[in-house]
Amino acid sequence: MSKRVAVILSGCGVYDGTEIHEASAVLVHLSRAGAKVQMFALNADQMHVVNHCEGKPTEEKRNILQESARIARGDVTDLTKLDVSAFDALIIPGGFGVAKNLSDWAVKNKDFTIQSQVEKLIKDFHKAGKPLGMCCISPILAAKLLPGCELTVGQDKECEKWPYAKTVGALKEMGCKHMNKDVKEAHVDAKNKLVTTCAFMCNAPMHDIFDGIGVMVKETLKLA
Amino acid sequence: MSKRVAVILSGCGVYDGTEIHEASAVLVHLSRAGAKVQMFALNADQMHVVNHCEGKPTEEKRNILQESARIARGDVTDLTKLDVSAFDALIIPGGFGVAKNLSDWAVKNKDFTIQSQVEKLIKDFHKAGKPLGMCCISPILAAKLLPGCELTVGQDKECEKWPYAKTVGALKEMGCKHMNKDVKEAHVDAKNKLVTTCAFMCNAPMHDIFDGIGVMVKETLKLA
Repeated sequence: MSKRVAVILSGCGVYDGTEIHEASAVLVHLSRAGAKVQMFALNADQMHVVNHCEGKPTEEKRNILQESARIARGDVTDLTKLDVSAFDALIIPGGFGVAKNLSDWAVKNKDFTIQSQVEKLIKDFHKAGKPLGMCCISPILAAKLLPGCELTVGQDKECEKWPYAKTVGALKEMGCKHMNKDVKEAHVDAKNKLVTTCAFMCNAPMHDIFDGIGVMVKETLKLA
Repeated sequence: MSKRVAVILSGCGVYDGTEIHEASAVLVHLSRAGAKVQMFALNADQMHVVNHCEGKPTEEKRNILQESARIARGDVTDLTKLDVSAFDALIIPGGFGVAKNLSDWAVKNKDFTIQSQVEKLIKDFHKAGKPLGMCCISPILAAKLLPGCELTVGQDKECEKWPYAKTVGALKEMGCKHMNKDVKEAHVDAKNKLVTTCAFMCNAPMHDIFDGIGVMVKETLKLA
């Protein structure tokens, strides 16, 4: 039987929403595995709108659900309607939307809070013994909600290949166990049914990121 | 030596810009083939901005280059700077941006015109004997500029799987030869060095569209 997977989006674009290529890779791999996918997003304003040419915030307002619909080709549902019992797994792609719209990590780092509905849903999937797949920066959500969990955001030594390695220090301070992994790998925390991969936390060719997300999706489905 | 490929984007989102998953698939396949990619977009307003939840235009204004930068993660260049001599091939993903921002097909159908810079670039790549890769609706550009060319936008019989099959009639009226192909196939017009695949003109699983685009990218690179 097809595995039913909920995917939470957080906008459309790496600097203020869901990282587009991570979302696309998740959907391609889920499709190939024959999973039944439904996408969800918060019906609320984005923290801000970033001009992606300049990397700077603008004065615009955009709605998370409407922007997520660009990735979902219109087929995205208000997050308030996500019924955990109707799904076998939850996947959350990365992008700054996770750190700005699903939480306030972008502003508060390890002292951040998670949007209440998102927090409840992650906890409910976890309590129900249903796997969570996360990539890029989205493992911060698991670090906060599943104390002591094992996860990866890549490598802990900053260099050109790993520009965001400092994230690892913050995650460790939060009490989780960081596993150094390369871009084409995922880490499986079997106890917590949590599967993570670094994706664009690594400065890597697009196809390596695509393949790493493929491993994350495959391992998540195995646990479902 | 790496093939150098220019990719023209037309915004970010199927209904008013570049189809996101087509662009992402193009980039993943080019990356796997070791191609050197540079993305370009017009620095101009989109024809309109569509609320992708409702499929309806809004009052907003958005800039094609800035929105394309969401797909390009900031790394997109003004189309006026595209120097044909610096590239071995040109690829144009689909989405309504092709029919609204790169041309006015969305309004005028087969009597459409193509934005002047886009028209000149396609002609220049063709004259230089450099291959053109196109998917979804972007083959309309070739139909207009390469009289009598062979191309595909999928199948010519409308049904649930092929909701846009009527496009074929318009293309034939323009004098090109339409080749019926399935979603995982591409058609190679060797004489014109034109490679086309239907992508989201087909109502197909995401991974089939991804694979069809993979064939298009591979065949385009072979001709470069």
